[in-house]
Amino acid sequence: MEHFEKQLGFLKEIDGMKNILRQTMLIDYSRRENDAEHSWHFAVTAMILEEYAEENIDLFRVLKMALIHDLVELDAGDTFAYDKTGNQDKKIRETAAAERIFGLLPDEQGKEFRSLWEEFDAMQTKDALYAACIDRIQPFINNYFTQGHTWRKGNVKPEQVYERMKPICTVMPKLWKFVTFVIEDSVRKGYFPAVSEP
Amino acid sequence: MEHFEKQLGFLKEIDGMKNILRQTMLIDYSRRENDAEHSWHFAVTAMILEEYAEENIDLFRVLKMALIHDLVELDAGDTFAYDKTGNQDKKIRETAAAERIFGLLPDEQGKEFRSLWEEFDAMQTKDALYAACIDRIQPFINNYFTQGHTWRKGNVKPEQVYERMKPICTVMPKLWKFVTFVIEDSVRKGYFPAVSEP
Repeated sequence: MEHFEKQLGFLKEIDGMKNILRQTMLIDYSRRENDAEHSWHFAVTAMILEEYAEENIDLFRVLKMALIHDLVELDAGDTFAYDKTGNQDKKIRETAAAERIFGLLPDEQGKEFRSLWEEFDAMQTKDALYAACIDRIQPFINNYFTQGHTWRKGNVKPEQVYERMKPICTVMPKLWKFVTFVIEDSVRKGYFPAVSEP
Repeated sequence: MEHFEKQLGFLKEIDGMKNILRQTMLIDYSRRENDAEHSWHFAVTAMILEEYAEENIDLFRVLKMALIHDLVELDAGDTFAYDKTGNQDKKIRETAAAERIFGLLPDEQGKEFRSLWEEFDAMQTKDALYAACIDRIQPFINNYFTQGHTWRKGNVKPEQVYERMKPICTVMPKLWKFVTFVIEDSVRKGYFPAVSEP
């Protein structure tokens, strides 16, 4: 049963996702979120907000993307969205990780998963674009409900958040008003680090 | 935007799943698994093992079940599978929880989610039966790789594990050999609490 043993090895390996910490804080401030939790919350958010996608998306494919999109972080680690240096070699680190991690699976299944991850990562298809939006909205919500914890810690500016959230403007335009409200409200409430006067 | 506000409230509320601890231990023994992590691992396992389902299942529906099946534990808490007392009033506690939690969503969406949860819980349809198998296999694997941590802690006997795993015998018969191997191997290796001589 070599085929099944590979699958079993993969299922064992991915338990490690529960120990890869992200910058996002849980809403009760108890600790940082990990990749397994984020992937789950992302998938549920994709189910809940489907109606706001401008084009008809294939939610089944999006859920599969959500569930596997961060597996590469088992080797490559989590790269903070606003970390310029970390994002420079992210692609190289994650491609090597994809090679090893999806390579644990039987050939055909590994290829299928890898191709889904590559589609997500390329952000070109409508399913991948919707997935990218949700991948941004989930931590955005947690951030708002933790008084901008990540923005503050990472010294992030409102303009950077606008830039990061931009896909929502075209893919889920009905939610853009919510995005701008949260950013402006966060500015008003002092959730962003203070900008020094020129 | 009352409709969206309800959805936002729901997405905030379910962050609590990350703090509901199960009996299952992470494979690196670092700590117990929580409901968000379990739901994610369950969903990925359902993707990986689909080929072993005897009947054609609708994986899309199964993934949705996996993602929401434990939301009732936000109020009802996690009931250990082998806890006889806890399982007596589980139904009542979980029905009340379903009422409140799915009730946070806009009506139609709440009904859709609740009906999916009820289908999962009733274990009658082929999708729900497959989901029930995977819900059992995921902790079974973690248990085996942590030297029967949960079985030992809960004073569980091999016969109880056979009983709990029974759906696999009919729904995923090709995996039954694996189930029996793991249980027998765990007996051999002393992963179950010692049985006192009569």
